[in-house]
Amino acid sequence: MRIRDLEITPIAFADPPLLNSWGVHEPLALRCVLQLHTEEDGLIGLGECPGDRPSLDRLRAVRAAIRGLSVYATSRIEQAVDRALGERIRPIDRRSTFSAIEVACLDVQGKLAGQPVSELLGGAVRDAVPYSAYLFYKWAGHPGQDPDEWGAALDPAGIVAQARQLIDRYGFASIKLKGGVFPPDDEIAAIRALRDAFPAHPLRIDPNTAWTAPTSAKVAASLDGILEYLEDPVAGVEGMAEVAREAGMPLATNMCVVSFDTIAPAVSAGAVQIVLCDHHYWGGLARTRQLGAVCEALGLGLSMHSNSHLGISLAAMTHLAAATPNLTYACDTHYPWNAADDVVVPGVLRFENGSVPVPRGPGLGVTLDHDALDRLHRQYVGSGRQVRDDTGYLRTVQPDFDPRLPRW
Amino acid sequence: MRIRDLEITPIAFADPPLLNSWGVHEPLALRCVLQLHTEEDGLIGLGECPGDRPSLDRLRAVRAAIRGLSVYATSRIEQAVDRALGERIRPIDRRSTFSAIEVACLDVQGKLAGQPVSELLGGAVRDAVPYSAYLFYKWAGHPGQDPDEWGAALDPAGIVAQARQLIDRYGFASIKLKGGVFPPDDEIAAIRALRDAFPAHPLRIDPNTAWTAPTSAKVAASLDGILEYLEDPVAGVEGMAEVAREAGMPLATNMCVVSFDTIAPAVSAGAVQIVLCDHHYWGGLARTRQLGAVCEALGLGLSMHSNSHLGISLAAMTHLAAATPNLTYACDTHYPWNAADDVVVPGVLRFENGSVPVPRGPGLGVTLDHDALDRLHRQYVGSGRQVRDDTGYLRTVQPDFDPRLPRW
Repeated sequence: MRIRDLEITPIAFADPPLLNSWGVHEPLALRCVLQLHTEEDGLIGLGECPGDRPSLDRLRAVRAAIRGLSVYATSRIEQAVDRALGERIRPIDRRSTFSAIEVACLDVQGKLAGQPVSELLGGAVRDAVPYSAYLFYKWAGHPGQDPDEWGAALDPAGIVAQARQLIDRYGFASIKLKGGVFPPDDEIAAIRALRDAFPAHPLRIDPNTAWTAPTSAKVAASLDGILEYLEDPVAGVEGMAEVAREAGMPLATNMCVVSFDTIAPAVSAGAVQIVLCDHHYWGGLARTRQLGAVCEALGLGLSMHSNSHLGISLAAMTHLAAATPNLTYACDTHYPWNAADDVVVPGVLRFENGSVPVPRGPGLGVTLDHDALDRLHRQYVGSGRQVRDDTGYLRTVQPDFDPRLPRW
Repeated sequence: MRIRDLEITPIAFADPPLLNSWGVHEPLALRCVLQLHTEEDGLIGLGECPGDRPSLDRLRAVRAAIRGLSVYATSRIEQAVDRALGERIRPIDRRSTFSAIEVACLDVQGKLAGQPVSELLGGAVRDAVPYSAYLFYKWAGHPGQDPDEWGAALDPAGIVAQARQLIDRYGFASIKLKGGVFPPDDEIAAIRALRDAFPAHPLRIDPNTAWTAPTSAKVAASLDGILEYLEDPVAGVEGMAEVAREAGMPLATNMCVVSFDTIAPAVSAGAVQIVLCDHHYWGGLARTRQLGAVCEALGLGLSMHSNSHLGISLAAMTHLAAATPNLTYACDTHYPWNAADDVVVPGVLRFENGSVPVPRGPGLGVTLDHDALDRLHRQYVGSGRQVRDDTGYLRTVQPDFDPRLPRW
């Protein structure tokens, strides 16, 4: 079963004004849908990845190189991708390019075998994958637009109200707050308010390296016994290690451990206790499943990271998590913020008590909604957008915003 | 595609009198061939594992528990195996039992997909897998029998002659000597003789923990610049670490790192630089592929261990090695010593310039020779043998043999 062509469709979908340490989400998020066409009987494998211009350029650069390769020969596809991109590309970008194609290959493999992708990854060990309620400070709506369905969340009460909306609708049993937006004391207050409102929900906060090590240590002390884990409070292995020596809770990261060669140094330094995996940049589903084994071998915890994404990625994330026994933390997902603009046919992907049931159909188990894809692609073309710019967008409202970190 | 039944066939095959630190190989080696029957269309998956009584008992104990499970659901099969065996079984024995079944499942999966097992493990990165010439001190023949085709190898000249036989016949480009049989100075002399006779062949020696740490360090100093690696000179992480601090060459092991939880302590202690993987007790092909990722992450070298085995195992080992990019050392195999009694139809498995071409047929790519299987099973039944006893067999010739280690 050989690759005939890789169809690359950039799309833009609606995104609420979610705040983070370097700005705010723009009204449209960019993503790319891959359709991997096979030679013999027209099977198509689906993939999803970032849709910024550099990502698209890399995909276009490897398109010819993977033609004719077997959808099973993922290692050779990876080699072909590496060769096509050359030595000057960052390893993480090479891995990201390959990853999107690997997911599409596994979708085809699963369709050929009549098996869900989770089974091809060693077999599902759970029928449904728990996700966390991913809270964001946010404006009521984009500037100049009506408030969205979620409303504003700019203080502890707003965050608690948002959590309640998400939990009422989806049943989440864990909560993560994207921090690094307001001064640490304000965010500590938000976490304490969440603890009061949801006494049994594990809580996490992720300020995306907005804090110094001393600030991080102070927050950790203040939230000792309250946080399940503290994610990337400070940049770099050295800073994380400094915080970890004082913090009562585990430190998690998707920023200072991002590849196999960054694990051992972080572990040696005592910088990290939990790795947030992400198949989009760890080199695909099979490689990320291997990361699970590495974490098991090193006694590291394993959770899952998310960027803004749609249903193809959610399906892939769910299959991966289902097949990774030691992925025992609820995974992150932005999906509730973007699900209304999904490109997959509704029905398969749903939350039940905060968990996504593992799709049971062959491959990823989701079907592309071609009308939705066309609409989102036209939206992409019409937008003229090429890159994500959270900082620039925030500056349209707050011209003196300085994105440099650490901020506190 | 569900499991209908697991057919368990113990066999006994001819084995030369190969010496090691705890005795000598008996005239018959025990092994077990698995035929995993599926419900729908009678596909059969092959597996091969040790054939001693405890291994057989464990397989029989899990037979009912895996019936009806999908051949893709290897994680659930592993859980079923664990439950059926209970808590009192050693983890390594649980993994060994599961591993044999997992290989048979992958054989079926490959047959269903029309793909070699290496492709299901992430894809082959090489078309042929290099193996080493595995030299043994040996008697000319079993006591009371005529000399075998290999003759005696009880001194440096005998070892060199044996290496030449193996290299002439198979083309091996690396050499491993099973040591721990004669005093270290004699084995050093054998390695030096090999170096003189084969100046370009990487050389290894494996005394199977027959030495103390000081003796190991002395041997390491004596063979500095000559050995590619030194394998398990001394027992335990502490002893290995002591040797590693002085040795000029990497230390390898298949004895003090045997599971995912034993990796980190050995690495932290600086005890081991190369892990010899073995899918038979690491929990199957997919898990051992994950071990490759762990070694990559930790900067450990990766090689492959072997016990006496036949062609089903050789095929599985070859697919695994082909799909593991960082398995860059020539693998160990006992196959040349036992190939004459193989249970697979000849033709697919062969050595070309010391490498086994990766079988290209679906699944493992080998076909069971039912006549050979019947003959070897009758040989097993007729022998009355239940366990391997290298020590007892050596004592029939050398009654005062003391197997306790370290010996020097």
